[in-house]
Amino acid sequence: MNHCMLLMDNQQITIYREEALSMVLRKMMNQALDAIIVTDLAVIRWLTGFSGSNARALITSEKSWLFTDFRYKEQAAGEVVVAETVIATDGFAAELGSGRYPLGKTVALQSDNVTWHEATRLIEQILGKQQVIPVDSFFEEFRMIKNETELMKMRRAAEISELVLEHVLSMISPSVTELDIAAEITYQHKKLGAEKDSFDPIVAGGARSAMPHASPSKARFKQGELIVLDIGCIYEGYASDQTRTVALGHVSGEAREIYRIVQEAQALGVASARCGMTAKELDQKVRQFIAEHGYADEFGHGLGHGVGLEVHEEPRISPKGEYTLQENMLFTIEPGIYLPGKFGVRIEDTVVMGPHGAIPLQRMSKELIEL
Amino acid sequence: MNHCMLLMDNQQITIYREEALSMVLRKMMNQALDAIIVTDLAVIRWLTGFSGSNARALITSEKSWLFTDFRYKEQAAGEVVVAETVIATDGFAAELGSGRYPLGKTVALQSDNVTWHEATRLIEQILGKQQVIPVDSFFEEFRMIKNETELMKMRRAAEISELVLEHVLSMISPSVTELDIAAEITYQHKKLGAEKDSFDPIVAGGARSAMPHASPSKARFKQGELIVLDIGCIYEGYASDQTRTVALGHVSGEAREIYRIVQEAQALGVASARCGMTAKELDQKVRQFIAEHGYADEFGHGLGHGVGLEVHEEPRISPKGEYTLQENMLFTIEPGIYLPGKFGVRIEDTVVMGPHGAIPLQRMSKELIEL
Repeated sequence: MNHCMLLMDNQQITIYREEALSMVLRKMMNQALDAIIVTDLAVIRWLTGFSGSNARALITSEKSWLFTDFRYKEQAAGEVVVAETVIATDGFAAELGSGRYPLGKTVALQSDNVTWHEATRLIEQILGKQQVIPVDSFFEEFRMIKNETELMKMRRAAEISELVLEHVLSMISPSVTELDIAAEITYQHKKLGAEKDSFDPIVAGGARSAMPHASPSKARFKQGELIVLDIGCIYEGYASDQTRTVALGHVSGEAREIYRIVQEAQALGVASARCGMTAKELDQKVRQFIAEHGYADEFGHGLGHGVGLEVHEEPRISPKGEYTLQENMLFTIEPGIYLPGKFGVRIEDTVVMGPHGAIPLQRMSKELIEL
Repeated sequence: MNHCMLLMDNQQITIYREEALSMVLRKMMNQALDAIIVTDLAVIRWLTGFSGSNARALITSEKSWLFTDFRYKEQAAGEVVVAETVIATDGFAAELGSGRYPLGKTVALQSDNVTWHEATRLIEQILGKQQVIPVDSFFEEFRMIKNETELMKMRRAAEISELVLEHVLSMISPSVTELDIAAEITYQHKKLGAEKDSFDPIVAGGARSAMPHASPSKARFKQGELIVLDIGCIYEGYASDQTRTVALGHVSGEAREIYRIVQEAQALGVASARCGMTAKELDQKVRQFIAEHGYADEFGHGLGHGVGLEVHEEPRISPKGEYTLQENMLFTIEPGIYLPGKFGVRIEDTVVMGPHGAIPLQRMSKELIEL
């Protein structure tokens, strides 16, 4: 892929942000909200482009503002579009209470993101004249559907991680540790142009592979064990996520059997995803398949999750996933079977929903690789 | 340092956790709290040892519980002490609402950490019979004061980062980029035994050094520019934090002059810290010095912050820092002067408060290094 294709010019960036803002403003009008205070940094990045670690945004029908502190003055000047940047020297609450902002009658707060403390303080000290409305998952329906630019970034993120995964597979041997491989993954992500890992890499051999979220240890790999590698990176703000389980030498018949079930379950997940079905229907299809093979209790997590500016976002593909799958959603399909004390197997791709079904971003084989 | 010294046996770990729990229980009794629901993962790690990414804890005078999900079942079994682990299949709120837990009459919630959504849900659906008390910064006064084991881990974290900093200084030249150095920092942290970076490394040359929180870019270093390197790692849960500003070749007289002011300001901060003074008094001392040199507006952040299980925790050393400095507190002293469009200088050590003043964990020279 030509790297230059990924760079939007300033005009394109502005158009993209304006479109996002318009969708938000329409929803605000439909819900009779005069203003919304945004506390979620991923939403702030999606809306304004600002990537710093301290920010609040205020969206009103009149205008939008991005509030941050002194440290990010220059960065905000370079990143923020469709909002005016304010360096809130005495903090966001004091700035908002200055009376300079058209808050209207109804102000929404992100109840799933703002702390109880901040909500209480804003309500009691600043928003005395307004009706304050808690909104939950307000932006998710928009953020779930990716545009072409976002998709290109996510393809590139997936490509980088897959190159890294292939590279580290060639390094695995009884003379290296899980931590060695984890360090190499993080290093290669950055060397290939990613900002960083999208989560701490999971590299877990033998009995440790039975822990779905194992931290890499000082353990060296052993002949005859399964190794779970679950990695991802951030490229221009967007995340990738991929898992492969590989064998070092020959593994037991039981391990091969479990691998085959998970492989078929993962393929079934990819093949079954259709626009119009709910996330929980997809989860159920794969869960049912694993249950029929007798491992219902050993698959204790959801089938997958949305990926985008956050590595875990909506739509969650779980027994509780209510969202309907739609074109240009991106999410993982990652069934696993974990036998405590013995081993675990998980296989994961990130897929993009097209008109005829789900297409994995990853290309690496899902056959059991014996190193 | 002998690495074995850092490993506590199970008995020592239990004693350490029990002591922490006792301090919390005494404070709960003093405030007539029957139970406290802990939502802050750093506090949960400090109290129970659990290091997973999803957890709640419930502390009552009778007993303590740690709630997490299926993914962390094995990990919790290996880590958690002084609390009973519960795998909350239907989520924490449902589990808490089961009636199995002795909540008493007054239940505290961490208002600075719990979301407005979760607080509202718990109050309306689960804690109908209890009086719910918001508590803010409840655990900070205990977490600020480190014990011997914590101090040893933090010394090791500082030592690892300093080795890494020395290593990457030898790599800086006009043929490498900020991102190359950042990737190397992250890699070497892990290779030397750290879990990971304690924050994304800042590597910023030339005009970019004027951004206190610059992200590393693809820019190559240029002769005659200043370069800010701000790095830290996590070792056995505990963070380090250190900044040096170096020159590539000869820099301007103005750059040398600013460097000298920041160097003197930083030394003044280290020399001035005394047990019994407040954090803001220390901040004021250094701020005044920088103001006298005419750069009050170019030092826009606090003088420092506490370090521990989090890289930014109490005591904040800022104009608002109310905590009194005490023995065995660890915090950074990191004045900076930033001239937008030109360059910035920041110098930072993490210090431990002893009976006679602050002692830096770092040993590297603070004279201007010309590479």
